Amino acid sequence: MADSPNCDLKSLSPLQLFERVTEQGEKVRALKAGKAPKDEIDAAVRMLLSLKLLYKTTTGQDYQAGLPPKDLVLINNGTTKEEDEDLVDPWNVQTSNAKGVDYDKLIVRFGSSKIDTDLINRIERATGQKPHHFLRRGIFFSHRDMDQVLDAYENKKPFYLYTGRGPSSQAMHVGHLIPFMFTKWLQEVFDVPLVIQLTDDEKYLWKDMTIEKAYEYARENAKDIIACGFDINKTFIFSDLDYLGTSAGFYKNIVKVQKHVTFNQVKGIFGFTDSDCIGKISFPSIQAAPSFSSSFPQIFNGKENIQCLIPCAIDQDPYFRMTRDVAPRIGQPKPALLHSVFFPALQGAQTKMSASDPNSSIFLTDTPKQIKTKINKHAFSGGRDTIEEHRKYGGNCDVDVSFMYLTFFLEDDDRLEQLKQAYTSGELLTGELKKVLIETMQPLVAAHQERRKQVADEIVKQFMTPRKLAFEF
Amino acid sequence: MADSPNCDLKSLSPLQLFERVTEQGEKVRALKAGKAPKDEIDAAVRMLLSLKLLYKTTTGQDYQAGLPPKDLVLINNGTTKEEDEDLVDPWNVQTSNAKGVDYDKLIVRFGSSKIDTDLINRIERATGQKPHHFLRRGIFFSHRDMDQVLDAYENKKPFYLYTGRGPSSQAMHVGHLIPFMFTKWLQEVFDVPLVIQLTDDEKYLWKDMTIEKAYEYARENAKDIIACGFDINKTFIFSDLDYLGTSAGFYKNIVKVQKHVTFNQVKGIFGFTDSDCIGKISFPSIQAAPSFSSSFPQIFNGKENIQCLIPCAIDQDPYFRMTRDVAPRIGQPKPALLHSVFFPALQGAQTKMSASDPNSSIFLTDTPKQIKTKINKHAFSGGRDTIEEHRKYGGNCDVDVSFMYLTFFLEDDDRLEQLKQAYTSGELLTGELKKVLIETMQPLVAAHQERRKQVADEIVKQFMTPRKLAFEF
Repeated sequence: MADSPNCDLKSLSPLQLFERVTEQGEKVRALKAGKAPKDEIDAAVRMLLSLKLLYKTTTGQDYQAGLPPKDLVLINNGTTKEEDEDLVDPWNVQTSNAKGVDYDKLIVRFGSSKIDTDLINRIERATGQKPHHFLRRGIFFSHRDMDQVLDAYENKKPFYLYTGRGPSSQAMHVGHLIPFMFTKWLQEVFDVPLVIQLTDDEKYLWKDMTIEKAYEYARENAKDIIACGFDINKTFIFSDLDYLGTSAGFYKNIVKVQKHVTFNQVKGIFGFTDSDCIGKISFPSIQAAPSFSSSFPQIFNGKENIQCLIPCAIDQDPYFRMTRDVAPRIGQPKPALLHSVFFPALQGAQTKMSASDPNSSIFLTDTPKQIKTKINKHAFSGGRDTIEEHRKYGGNCDVDVSFMYLTFFLEDDDRLEQLKQAYTSGELLTGELKKVLIETMQPLVAAHQERRKQVADEIVKQFMTPRKLAFEF
Repeated sequence: MADSPNCDLKSLSPLQLFERVTEQGEKVRALKAGKAPKDEIDAAVRMLLSLKLLYKTTTGQDYQAGLPPKDLVLINNGTTKEEDEDLVDPWNVQTSNAKGVDYDKLIVRFGSSKIDTDLINRIERATGQKPHHFLRRGIFFSHRDMDQVLDAYENKKPFYLYTGRGPSSQAMHVGHLIPFMFTKWLQEVFDVPLVIQLTDDEKYLWKDMTIEKAYEYARENAKDIIACGFDINKTFIFSDLDYLGTSAGFYKNIVKVQKHVTFNQVKGIFGFTDSDCIGKISFPSIQAAPSFSSSFPQIFNGKENIQCLIPCAIDQDPYFRMTRDVAPRIGQPKPALLHSVFFPALQGAQTKMSASDPNSSIFLTDTPKQIKTKINKHAFSGGRDTIEEHRKYGGNCDVDVSFMYLTFFLEDDDRLEQLKQAYTSGELLTGELKKVLIETMQPLVAAHQERRKQVADEIVKQFMTPRKLAFEF
């Protein structure tokens, strides 16, 4: 592994690393100037990129030629990323692999557990229901303490679900539905209360947005969430900006978490710096607090120790690693977690989708025509360059975004398997696979739009009113 | 203004400033080595000290020869302390002077304005009332923008009062009453709404104390505050732990402040470090937010721009310097301030009193006998060692704690002046002066206890219930 920057480089100080990146940059320039062989230049460039990445994970700063590291504190979170590793935190998901993030590695790095066949079977036995295809297909792939939740459930002890969304713009895309579709299934099969946090305060703090706008997005997003079909008698949706001012328990839990987490810790976990505003620095406590049932006295009758289960995308795990660390110190149970993979952008699985790029995904507001055009124009294909080659060598489902989307949205296992076989063998062409996706997504989005239309403002208001749910505690 | 480092230096970058300090140091050394005239050396040294101070306020770091600034972010608080200066921040008050803190210097350092005779006369004209003896005697000695409050008042524009207390223990001492006695007078002469913040969350964050205990202290302290005689129809007392969960406007203002203050800033202003919990780091926003009328929609009918006037001890000024810095950036008026001196400990004026040391002051729970014993045993005397010497040279009112206490609590100006003359001339002995103090404090504390007894839990609850007050907005 002569090319790996990893061997002894990890022991280098930020300043030494800085010098190492500078040297490597000079080497690349020299090779290029000397017209060295392409593979030699390529190897040097890869090394340079890896070094820059290592520099960034070590110092929390982008390498800038001539500017040595500003702050020599190491980021010490156990999530420090090695070269070629994927970058995954609540604000960034980066991988160089067209198949997407390497989730097995992520499980090791985050210290979570794989959702294996045993666990899936146990969920089936406990609920008497066929496991959701998100479980069967590894879309929810990792967990923390799900076995304890099942122990409790089998012993008739209550638990509740908590998930959320940062309402960054009015339009949600189909990927945003994944945690909600799965949460809805969990709520139905386990019959438990659900709380959904809309972090409008987070969006206000992070974006160039007024409080009023953030709150407006929260209410708009609530409509899309409600349109997923949640039971109004079992679900409480709340905006932080709203609920903090109406709850007797929420702020108390926030301040408890705040007392037990230092700036050093959030710096390590989230990469905050001294130039970040104090709102960002304390925000993790606000995402942590709904993990404790006393944040919802109206639902849990003031009971403190109801177990919480959080279905979320894996990038939210840092918040809950922090929460689980604090929980025992404030006398609360640790929340359990179920982690999903990322939903790929139409352009490929290297990045998480962005609600701000209209072509990066299918939006819940798209017309059938827009869906068709987007898939045909932008969905990254694992097919071959010519029909002849495709027939001969077959397509690659591992990188084909249309196929990936179908694993999310086509519930019929047999059909999916047939498509996979046909595409891999070359029998099915890219255009034909895209057609299947178009025909899957068009009715799905149209049905969502229809349900959303029926969500009156009054319904949103009811969902967002703190109240008792249909459970006795 | 050749000596002023202020003219164009403020536009220098930290690194340029660093170089400027280094140059000036070399200049001083050269002048000394060349045995230049004393006044020339002195001027150069003054310039060097000013430059070092500017360097420190700009970078938050002490100038160290050969060590350029570590972090280039500006800290803009103007509170940097020189050697021999008094240390004054919300958690520490230290001075080596028996007369107490040098308040004139503090005004210069904090950049506030002295409450001078003109301002006192203007308050008298505006209100038609004789100024409170705390104003006449310089106990409230400094202000920010009080003239603007008076401008507004004279133009019939509304304002409101905001003060507070950190409820650290059940027992309050007589010094704790100072801001409340003065605030009560202000409320009466100006006839304005008053909000009183009890920072039980702060106490939970800073002390080894449960949330429940902090809240209990808040309610107990509220009784003592109410016993000062505030008008229930014009006063709202709130615990943060309570009110944050019941107010539609408070959290929104908190998060607005949080967005506009960085960790660098609170580090500079309050001395927080990376090891401090994120609760402490974000707390200043919670003390800031009541400065904005929209934190109290129930009182101000949702109006955003009602001017706020904050009477408080000078050690709380850092919070409000920060608030005033943020206010225009979130479209709010800057709060005005009236600053009081510190109440001296019985043992002497070198330190602020401590509620945790029962002998450091007279507590509101003390019996007449305890008051007598404490004053006789512990009140630091400015008298002479023997009666003979005292008769001959007289006592020193500047350091005599009994006399200081009388300036706070003896309202009769003529009597106070007589006592001063008699003590300074040696006619009045220490024991006699202490007797006057005992006779002043015993009925004052007894009357407080009597009023406090009449404050039923139901009254506390009413004061602490968010509601409309007797003012139209």
